Amino acid sequence: MANPTAGMLVIGDEILSGRTRDANMYHLAGCLTEVGIDLQEARTVSDNPDAIVDAVRALSGAYDQVFTSGGIGPTHDDITADCVATAMGASIDVREDARAVLQAHYDRQGIEMNEARLRMARIPDGACLIDNPVSAAPGFSIGNVHVMAGVPTIFKAMLETLLPSLTGGDPVMSRTVRILRAEGEIAGPLGALATEFPGLSIGSYPFQMDGSFGANIVLRGTDASMISKAADQLIAAFPDSIG
Amino acid sequence: MANPTAGMLVIGDEILSGRTRDANMYHLAGCLTEVGIDLQEARTVSDNPDAIVDAVRALSGAYDQVFTSGGIGPTHDDITADCVATAMGASIDVREDARAVLQAHYDRQGIEMNEARLRMARIPDGACLIDNPVSAAPGFSIGNVHVMAGVPTIFKAMLETLLPSLTGGDPVMSRTVRILRAEGEIAGPLGALATEFPGLSIGSYPFQMDGSFGANIVLRGTDASMISKAADQLIAAFPDSIG
Repeated sequence: MANPTAGMLVIGDEILSGRTRDANMYHLAGCLTEVGIDLQEARTVSDNPDAIVDAVRALSGAYDQVFTSGGIGPTHDDITADCVATAMGASIDVREDARAVLQAHYDRQGIEMNEARLRMARIPDGACLIDNPVSAAPGFSIGNVHVMAGVPTIFKAMLETLLPSLTGGDPVMSRTVRILRAEGEIAGPLGALATEFPGLSIGSYPFQMDGSFGANIVLRGTDASMISKAADQLIAAFPDSIG
Repeated sequence: MANPTAGMLVIGDEILSGRTRDANMYHLAGCLTEVGIDLQEARTVSDNPDAIVDAVRALSGAYDQVFTSGGIGPTHDDITADCVATAMGASIDVREDARAVLQAHYDRQGIEMNEARLRMARIPDGACLIDNPVSAAPGFSIGNVHVMAGVPTIFKAMLETLLPSLTGGDPVMSRTVRILRAEGEIAGPLGALATEFPGLSIGSYPFQMDGSFGANIVLRGTDASMISKAADQLIAAFPDSIG
């Protein structure tokens, strides 16, 4: 059976303006590969309600799991929870379980609950909370959409809680063969190899080093022996490669 | 008049598998902000023809300009040019102008043209070539879609050639006010500020430092005096902020 599929939605003007370099997609991609969930698409949209709602609907319909990052804090530009509720056809209001989590956290810290902080307890009806061990304000899962914070430390912590609850597939393994020749030299034999091993994803990633061209050939799949066989053939064809 | 809008499409399994962290979106985002083109969405898709064709069509229809990155090399997984041709309804074949550019480059380097390298001269009918000063194989623009290489040094060089040919808008300026308080303390006055200055995009980006919470408030817009006025009000409201 094919592995479950996933899409990601990164929400935030700061990524699209070039102010911040996204770290969460890169982190999620690595984690999903480990558990055998196939990340097929990632989108980044700005803090615009229509854009968020449309993207959540599209990704939720297209993939088994959807992971979002950003826009769940207390400020006016944090509109993700309400947009996800709209996209999933759920009502949303301050929920007592989320309020209790926040209240306990603020009590421990001697911080007062106020209207802005209470916004972080707005959770769609029927959603499951995702624990936030860093700053308490929870994420949530509704249907196949998992809503997490944009701050990388919090995103990581939430993902760690969430992942064991999802059904993964066969872990995807990979092996890299480094060939110190230009891609144009490798392309013919490599295409033949890809045709011979349709069960593998074979990618060629060119690089330049000290003025010479080379390529990392990455063989990916869920069958270790098939990867090994293809890598051996590739190394035999290019004896100067570094397997 | 509103600034022109843009979308980006990053193509490549290596980003979605977590093997490589994308650098081109971050670079493009910063460059577009400087020239007043408003990047509103970025998508990353795998080396899958349907996914690429659908994304190019969607982005090309939604935004004034579309920038793609990746998949224009000589290997079997380089399918961007053909997919963009399909999406834009253009025919595609080896084009003499592109072949001449490649041939001259290989002649200079004493490299032989072969079938794989010739694939890089496949350019859709009616497209304009984008110069590649690094490794010769050109990118191209067709309609509002600009197709560039995934290797970051080549992407940057192509973008540098391309950008002066596009009509930008008013440069977007920004000012950051750093407030050493938790977002929950800032959110109320900040929301009021956003309502008072609808012409600005006001974002709040929380951080943690030495166990304390703070937030960078970023005020963005095309009117410098409006940004300045809003920043002054914010600093007056939070006298301990760092403007």
